[in-house]
Amino acid sequence: MAEPEKTAASAGEFGCIEAVCHDLLYRPELVKLGAGDDGAVYVSPPGMDQVISTDTMVEGIHFTAETMDAADVGWKLCTANFSDMAAMGAEPAQFVISAALPKTLPLSWLKACYEGIRAACRRYRVNLLGGDMTGSRQGVVLTGTVVGMVPSGTAVPRSGAREGDLLVLTGPVGDSAAGLEAIFRGRAREFPELVSRHRRPVPRVEAGAVLREAGIRALDDITDGLASESHEVATASGQDLILEKDRIPLSEEARRAGEAFGIDPLHWAFTGGEDYALLGAGPEEAVRRAAEQIPLTVIGRVAGPGGRVWLEEGGRLSLLPRCGYDHFKEETP
Amino acid sequence: MAEPEKTAASAGEFGCIEAVCHDLLYRPELVKLGAGDDGAVYVSPPGMDQVISTDTMVEGIHFTAETMDAADVGWKLCTANFSDMAAMGAEPAQFVISAALPKTLPLSWLKACYEGIRAACRRYRVNLLGGDMTGSRQGVVLTGTVVGMVPSGTAVPRSGAREGDLLVLTGPVGDSAAGLEAIFRGRAREFPELVSRHRRPVPRVEAGAVLREAGIRALDDITDGLASESHEVATASGQDLILEKDRIPLSEEARRAGEAFGIDPLHWAFTGGEDYALLGAGPEEAVRRAAEQIPLTVIGRVAGPGGRVWLEEGGRLSLLPRCGYDHFKEETP
Repeated sequence: MAEPEKTAASAGEFGCIEAVCHDLLYRPELVKLGAGDDGAVYVSPPGMDQVISTDTMVEGIHFTAETMDAADVGWKLCTANFSDMAAMGAEPAQFVISAALPKTLPLSWLKACYEGIRAACRRYRVNLLGGDMTGSRQGVVLTGTVVGMVPSGTAVPRSGAREGDLLVLTGPVGDSAAGLEAIFRGRAREFPELVSRHRRPVPRVEAGAVLREAGIRALDDITDGLASESHEVATASGQDLILEKDRIPLSEEARRAGEAFGIDPLHWAFTGGEDYALLGAGPEEAVRRAAEQIPLTVIGRVAGPGGRVWLEEGGRLSLLPRCGYDHFKEETP
Repeated sequence: MAEPEKTAASAGEFGCIEAVCHDLLYRPELVKLGAGDDGAVYVSPPGMDQVISTDTMVEGIHFTAETMDAADVGWKLCTANFSDMAAMGAEPAQFVISAALPKTLPLSWLKACYEGIRAACRRYRVNLLGGDMTGSRQGVVLTGTVVGMVPSGTAVPRSGAREGDLLVLTGPVGDSAAGLEAIFRGRAREFPELVSRHRRPVPRVEAGAVLREAGIRALDDITDGLASESHEVATASGQDLILEKDRIPLSEEARRAGEAFGIDPLHWAFTGGEDYALLGAGPEEAVRRAAEQIPLTVIGRVAGPGGRVWLEEGGRLSLLPRCGYDHFKEETP
């Protein structure tokens, strides 16, 4: 008879921790004491500011067994967190994870999830400095907290956009939402790139550093859709933004999915989120310097004092509603 | 007609964030950019190591509406995290919180919870640097992550106990579990101190610094009970520990509750947890230096190489089982 599959309950808290606690350090030169004690000890190099952010993924809200496998979930938890560093022009360096797990969770799921986490930490040279494991009443809840670093005084806030700045995106938006739509419609195989953008999105850590060094002065990552994020920049900067509808970068596959499903792919771009492309604002010279190193699309400009976002199409302006995804309200994402 | 009470769903994600985002900085000199951007930016003073830890509280597991009110939950989330800093001899400095909230949660609960958080942050001079708010399928899940600091090279691990060291506790253990028992039995009013220890436990931040400066070389905080934590020190240090049963400090009220409920209060001390007293090991001179500044109880000694924990009673030794609370196994706490 086959042994019954191990679960979080049968492995116990220490068994769960033991199952995932290996190969944790990908930038050991910064670590004095790794996971396993009450706290982990690390150093911050001189001349650097520290940047901190935290991000949670909830089963049934951010993912289901249908939309993502365990390793995808682990990878995406890292992306969501590391992307916040990229959006400050910082590089992620230290990471801790809290996992609330239902008793029935297969231990194999947990292990696979941490392989996804490990893959992302290896790729971006981030140390896993431990965490917390506890029970959950329903579904998996994972919280990551990342600490990054940025040369002193150079972190790029959302609030730095100034009149005359150009607005840029580091890549297409809407792919992740289009991929999710393809999964829901049982047509994942036809749109592998979109599905991959949903399941294995990439934090633009290197691009964030390039944009910072080039002199981009406002940055935000696309987590809740271009509509919501452009409003964040507009509000924080106290500036009106004008987005040119025809310039918003859409992937070929998103256009194709839009046609196949009868959905305007711009809907995904504006309200879909989880693309993790970076939205930046900066003077033209800064944009030119950055564009020598990374692909950039100019999508509009900063029009002057205000706080609204306008959409320009055929020379006509209309107000863009702030219709990003809200985790509590019952809106369609 | 009275307006219906606002909930997480009716306030929306931004409404929830707005309701709690005020009075966040209690050590502003370390902060360059507070909550509200993709990441918060802070500085770490030269000559300090950084210490990080994360801790989660799950409704239905760590608390219920019966055992704790919202402000208690917020306070205790801070204590659990700050105590991990104390147990490294570090002081907490920066804090971020991720909150997964059910749609029906009253906004008033969330506000009260953050008042508890604010009270702890004010008391221990810790900055609230933001966080994440998202939905939950069942119950509140709160994760705090704390970053602290300690003079370079002086963090106190669990692994530092050496043969001949004395074992010390900074205060009584078992009170929190006894308080919980009193709540369950509907006898909270008879045991106000114990109940307060359960609902408003105190992280021993100042004591941690005193012990570090005095030369205590192993530290752990009592989160899962003295049995579990002493095993942590024994295992990490590779040393056998001997605890003297009669020296284990119990409060008068815990003894009284033990009599009233027919439970040996040592049961609470060994397996109850959430006391947040510090367990330390160090040479006699270090203990004496520390005891000049804070109350300390010597409860035993480090016997030599090994990794087991012995209980001494009337000159006889017996092995102490590692029977602390396990979040997945079905044991009585």
